[in-house]
Amino acid sequence: MPKIPRDKSNDYSLEMAKTRRAFLTQKTGQSLQQVGHFSLQPESLPGNIENFIGVAQVPIGLAGPMLIDGLEANGEFYVPMATTEGTLVASYNRGMRLTNEAGGIKTTVIDDAMQRAPLFSFCDARAALAFGQWVTDNFEQIKAKAEETTSVGKLRDIEQYAVSKIRWLRFNYTCGDAAGQNMVSKATRHACQWILDQKIEGLDHFALSANLDTDKKHSFVNSLHTRGKRVVAEVVIPAALMKSIMHCTPEELYKQRQFSNMGAFMAGSVSNGAHFANGITAVFIACGQDVANVAESSAGYSFSEITADGDYYFSVTIPSLVVATYGGGTGLATQRECLETLGCYGKGGVNKFAEIVAATVLCGELSLGAAVVADEWVSSHDQYGRNRP
Amino acid sequence: MPKIPRDKSNDYSLEMAKTRRAFLTQKTGQSLQQVGHFSLQPESLPGNIENFIGVAQVPIGLAGPMLIDGLEANGEFYVPMATTEGTLVASYNRGMRLTNEAGGIKTTVIDDAMQRAPLFSFCDARAALAFGQWVTDNFEQIKAKAEETTSVGKLRDIEQYAVSKIRWLRFNYTCGDAAGQNMVSKATRHACQWILDQKIEGLDHFALSANLDTDKKHSFVNSLHTRGKRVVAEVVIPAALMKSIMHCTPEELYKQRQFSNMGAFMAGSVSNGAHFANGITAVFIACGQDVANVAESSAGYSFSEITADGDYYFSVTIPSLVVATYGGGTGLATQRECLETLGCYGKGGVNKFAEIVAATVLCGELSLGAAVVADEWVSSHDQYGRNRP
Amino acid sequence: MPKIPRDKSNDYSLEMAKTRRAFLTQKTGQSLQQVGHFSLQPESLPGNIENFIGVAQVPIGLAGPMLIDGLEANGEFYVPMATTEGTLVASYNRGMRLTNEAGGIKTTVIDDAMQRAPLFSFCDARAALAFGQWVTDNFEQIKAKAEETTSVGKLRDIEQYAVSKIRWLRFNYTCGDAAGQNMVSKATRHACQWILDQKIEGLDHFALSANLDTDKKHSFVNSLHTRGKRVVAEVVIPAALMKSIMHCTPEELYKQRQFSNMGAFMAGSVSNGAHFANGITAVFIACGQDVANVAESSAGYSFSEITADGDYYFSVTIPSLVVATYGGGTGLATQRECLETLGCYGKGGVNKFAEIVAATVLCGELSLGAAVVADEWVSSHDQYGRNRP
Amino acid sequence: MPKIPRDKSNDYSLEMAKTRRAFLTQKTGQSLQQVGHFSLQPESLPGNIENFIGVAQVPIGLAGPMLIDGLEANGEFYVPMATTEGTLVASYNRGMRLTNEAGGIKTTVIDDAMQRAPLFSFCDARAALAFGQWVTDNFEQIKAKAEETTSVGKLRDIEQYAVSKIRWLRFNYTCGDAAGQNMVSKATRHACQWILDQKIEGLDHFALSANLDTDKKHSFVNSLHTRGKRVVAEVVIPAALMKSIMHCTPEELYKQRQFSNMGAFMAGSVSNGAHFANGITAVFIACGQDVANVAESSAGYSFSEITADGDYYFSVTIPSLVVATYGGGTGLATQRECLETLGCYGKGGVNKFAEIVAATVLCGELSLGAAVVADEWVSSHDQYGRNRP
Repeated sequence: MPKIPRDKSNDYSLEMAKTRRAFLTQKTGQSLQQVGHFSLQPESLPGNIENFIGVAQVPIGLAGPMLIDGLEANGEFYVPMATTEGTLVASYNRGMRLTNEAGGIKTTVIDDAMQRAPLFSFCDARAALAFGQWVTDNFEQIKAKAEETTSVGKLRDIEQYAVSKIRWLRFNYTCGDAAGQNMVSKATRHACQWILDQKIEGLDHFALSANLDTDKKHSFVNSLHTRGKRVVAEVVIPAALMKSIMHCTPEELYKQRQFSNMGAFMAGSVSNGAHFANGITAVFIACGQDVANVAESSAGYSFSEITADGDYYFSVTIPSLVVATYGGGTGLATQRECLETLGCYGKGGVNKFAEIVAATVLCGELSLGAAVVADEWVSSHDQYGRNRP
Repeated sequence: MPKIPRDKSNDYSLEMAKTRRAFLTQKTGQSLQQVGHFSLQPESLPGNIENFIGVAQVPIGLAGPMLIDGLEANGEFYVPMATTEGTLVASYNRGMRLTNEAGGIKTTVIDDAMQRAPLFSFCDARAALAFGQWVTDNFEQIKAKAEETTSVGKLRDIEQYAVSKIRWLRFNYTCGDAAGQNMVSKATRHACQWILDQKIEGLDHFALSANLDTDKKHSFVNSLHTRGKRVVAEVVIPAALMKSIMHCTPEELYKQRQFSNMGAFMAGSVSNGAHFANGITAVFIACGQDVANVAESSAGYSFSEITADGDYYFSVTIPSLVVATYGGGTGLATQRECLETLGCYGKGGVNKFAEIVAATVLCGELSLGAAVVADEWVSSHDQYGRNRP
Repeated sequence: MPKIPRDKSNDYSLEMAKTRRAFLTQKTGQSLQQVGHFSLQPESLPGNIENFIGVAQVPIGLAGPMLIDGLEANGEFYVPMATTEGTLVASYNRGMRLTNEAGGIKTTVIDDAMQRAPLFSFCDARAALAFGQWVTDNFEQIKAKAEETTSVGKLRDIEQYAVSKIRWLRFNYTCGDAAGQNMVSKATRHACQWILDQKIEGLDHFALSANLDTDKKHSFVNSLHTRGKRVVAEVVIPAALMKSIMHCTPEELYKQRQFSNMGAFMAGSVSNGAHFANGITAVFIACGQDVANVAESSAGYSFSEITADGDYYFSVTIPSLVVATYGGGTGLATQRECLETLGCYGKGGVNKFAEIVAATVLCGELSLGAAVVADEWVSSHDQYGRNRP
Repeated sequence: MPKIPRDKSNDYSLEMAKTRRAFLTQKTGQSLQQVGHFSLQPESLPGNIENFIGVAQVPIGLAGPMLIDGLEANGEFYVPMATTEGTLVASYNRGMRLTNEAGGIKTTVIDDAMQRAPLFSFCDARAALAFGQWVTDNFEQIKAKAEETTSVGKLRDIEQYAVSKIRWLRFNYTCGDAAGQNMVSKATRHACQWILDQKIEGLDHFALSANLDTDKKHSFVNSLHTRGKRVVAEVVIPAALMKSIMHCTPEELYKQRQFSNMGAFMAGSVSNGAHFANGITAVFIACGQDVANVAESSAGYSFSEITADGDYYFSVTIPSLVVATYGGGTGLATQRECLETLGCYGKGGVNKFAEIVAATVLCGELSLGAAVVADEWVSSHDQYGRNRP
């Protein structure tokens, strides 16, 4: 079978991209003219892609302004959202208008941890138990070893999970402004090599990972104990404002919340919210995040109350928001521009960015929730969606 | 607060996109030159985006060829993957090489359903029970009503879920080559309006959705009963081939699978696989899918066996793969080109596309699984990733 | 090692029980005088126990009266509860007083199914898919075969669950007044032997069960699709009554419910209720149920509302209540007496019994929930519990 | 409605029990002669039951001997099992014979914690975050307060779970030989009263529990972080022995395990085992445990391997085994005798007892698993069960 063309000395060049597109056109008979149209510099791509042929042009819509009173994000933000789902930007925008008029959204990053969870299997459960104690006793040395491979990553603590003769160590790191998955893999592997050198009694088998991390997929462990940032966005919407903009009352929304809570619980859903994934994905694509982390980032919790004054307290909590403002795809052409318009590009921006994402999610939840209650959901898609009547 | 500029008569024009970029630059002091560089025609965008300002340029790498023996996908495919995670394309490519040499991947779409699950709440559980029976008895009329709004969508069946005095009806449709979320919302709303006209006894409350669909998030209901396509990809890898390409034996991989199964089960993960989300997301972005559906599409099952000959049977099952080859973002400039190179654009392509996605996922699972076992995971990221030594 | 004495001709005799107790006393030096004190007739035991030595005397407390307006249970009931947890009977009793004064509890059995889920594994996913269709096409014959082994069990339908090249068939039966686990095992095995005789193409492996039943453990499948009886109990408590008997308001209870819902959802709990298991277990022991089914029967849902009048609508739904009034331990000496006082012993009693259990559970939820809210939980245990001050 | 007779001065007397039975007989027309036949002393009952009327006589069968090499349980044990499910004792007994001939079962208690998880809700997420830090900083004082109410319970640590503006503190205690639920409620309430006295900023609401404990129901939190004892039982069964006693090979059992793992994962089951609940429940009833804890104790993990010699390594892990050898029902007449024959009654016995329960569970898993594989499951129930042919 014909292989995709490569050229070790010049693999990330416009020329090689063109050669590959020509190859693909020859194989399939299809033009790749649009894919070949881009402004990013291929030289910027090593570390982000292999066998580069061009780009996906994903349309960006702008939502905002959105007023945030965050620990790190403060002021008005215009949020770039890359999506092809009609109505989405309009809906988030509507939620932003509502929250602005309500005085803005309060955002707080309440936890921060990135994981790698190596597995150690032993001759029996007792050896595994003894090892668990040994790890606790030697935490400082393990931490020192892990941190030898990185100037940014800090080993916060090690959770232990035990079954049979097996022990998983869930290494929790803070990773500065990077998402940190590779950073923690490397650091954890290095620390584990040191552990393996200590001749642990009864040790049978080691694996650097075996699904207790849990990477690129939702798990209860992630939602309980945070993966990436755990971030909360909150708002109080006056009843009159809700009625005038959203065409429903706090009581109606609250009643819907009861049903949605029960539905999510019975369905075994990872979220009792409506569509966290929509806002997260659109901002992730625009801002150079690892979009596959939508898998875990899309899980979350909605919680609401009717206040003593009859207003609507509403919050979203995203327990596993994996974000970065440094490294990964954040420095690419359009992605960096989008992060910069949010004032989040580079070092020091990651919590600010996490708060903006959470605030955006909150706006989308309010808008869709209200649309369902006010029976405007289908009609809005008729208005904005592909198959307009 | 200053609003994002709009112009009803001309909102989807290059000019308005430029005006909005200028507005954003003025607000933030940041250039949007790269975002403003694209070849797609804004006139194609209504139905896909609002407040258009430009595009995210997401680099596409090419993986393949990948040999498939599917129910609908047959032959060699070159898979466009849009990502910014270094190593990803190389890793999937490695898996494709392995499966090619093993004779290719067998793929099968085994189920197909898109949902909307309206909720009916009653005066008591008995009224809800009676309604459940009524729905069963009147299925044909409900189906006729639902299908009045669509020439494509077909109401397959209605599952019922009951708690307290509440009954959710989970309408399952087939939607042709569209993903169908809006199609089923509209059809279900229409059918429910007819139901509501029937003066159902004891009915208190209706909502078009309350988290038993379950949309844009994983749930057990989705994984058990399919959302979108349920698709299986299978392969048998000869032991010698595994050793020569992947540097590990079937037995070693199988042992790792045992640990990964246990880890996923204990963690409460939605997948016992490694990183379904990576391949799915990269193909979704390239091919104009609704990327937010990674939330539910990333869940799945790996299952493997050592054959009587000592080879490695490996399969992935994706129970909630939400895909389209028609509608949504599939017709946009670069997205359509990518679908066309796979021979999947437009009517009749959706199951073929689902099979290609599943085969791709399988290749990535084999590659990452083997890399963990052969201790090549961290070193491969050192080779291809951003922070190369 | 010394074996426990047996005597084929006389194994279920008072004498053999005594011989075994003597054997055990000799081995351990401990008296078994109390265990040896009982009134049941050992001759009634074959089919219930092996190596009989005597009985556990579990104290029974009486709760009630409890007023039920059920589909099958109607009137006042005095509920025998076998437990050793102080406060339990008193607490359920308090809930019964409350619900009586509120006019009684409405109960409804809304579904009924007992399962066995054989597994069929094939050469590939396509063969499994074809088999799935074959099963649908041949349902009537499969049903006829299954029902050959039982005059009571009726095969209602077969759900199918698919992953990889595997297909589970979840046979759903109604079983009259028996719990039916053995009945459905036997019937399903018989039907499967017929299936296996049909030379199904590509079939590799068969197992009568592989955890999709799901027996003696909770699962989402059970809670979604019912195992045993799905039963709802409902009540409306006037606000003034709640305050006078429970010392808290509907609003306070409702607020607590919000927190309990969120806690259960985040914890990944099988129930958002407080302690369904307490009432279920106590009635199960008293009434000769298979108490191990507390594993699945203890899962469930609480749902409440504040009515327009400010009263408290409260319901419990038990989706997997495995109960019997015939067979198993229902005919034993004390167990039968307890069932008889409820008017549930024997044929025709099982739904009535299920409703009584659900009503009992509801009373316990109201009582404990209110005790937590009114801060009377710890003090009540001080009053009734073992370590009284 | 007529109330159940009470007599404050003499409520726990034979006479009052008789009076209540007469009352019940009068109400229902049913005899309670068998219920009234018992040898326990009603004076021993305060703290265990209210409205005492008599006992449930639950038949006890004896299984064993079972050879254990535990951290605390060592030697041969005869296990009293109270059940009415025919075949159960015989099946566990068969597993014991197998494990004896294999050299016995290794058991290890690997964790120990009993919980109460109070909830604190605040004005916003930031106040909740600050409180979390305050709790960490003041752990020693909180611990001192909690331990004022108990000479036995020790506060080990406090886990924190956060969502929205809410923080749950999961107090983990060790409780000596008691199960400890009431002990930890009282201690935690006392500690929380001290916390509430500290004028925590922004605190809105407190509840002593809201489903993150999680009591009398399974949850992922419990299985991940232990409730009661976390105990492992392990054995290696030589292949020849497996064949001769169980009529199947290690490979066949191992294959079945793969299917059972997948089934449990897809079903969303709390256990990948077969029927942990059967053994646990039977021993719990016989030995005076709080049987409602079967709800959480029945969850668990099976893990097996084929050894290099072709033998079968098998283990069970019970992560939430709630047991006691002191307090609760352990001191009642028959219950105490059963605990004494195991050498576990009273102080110092609880880990030994936990190990015996785990070893028993392991034997039952091997026996049922093999019966399914060898197609002896249905026939054994025909032999021992109620409806013998």
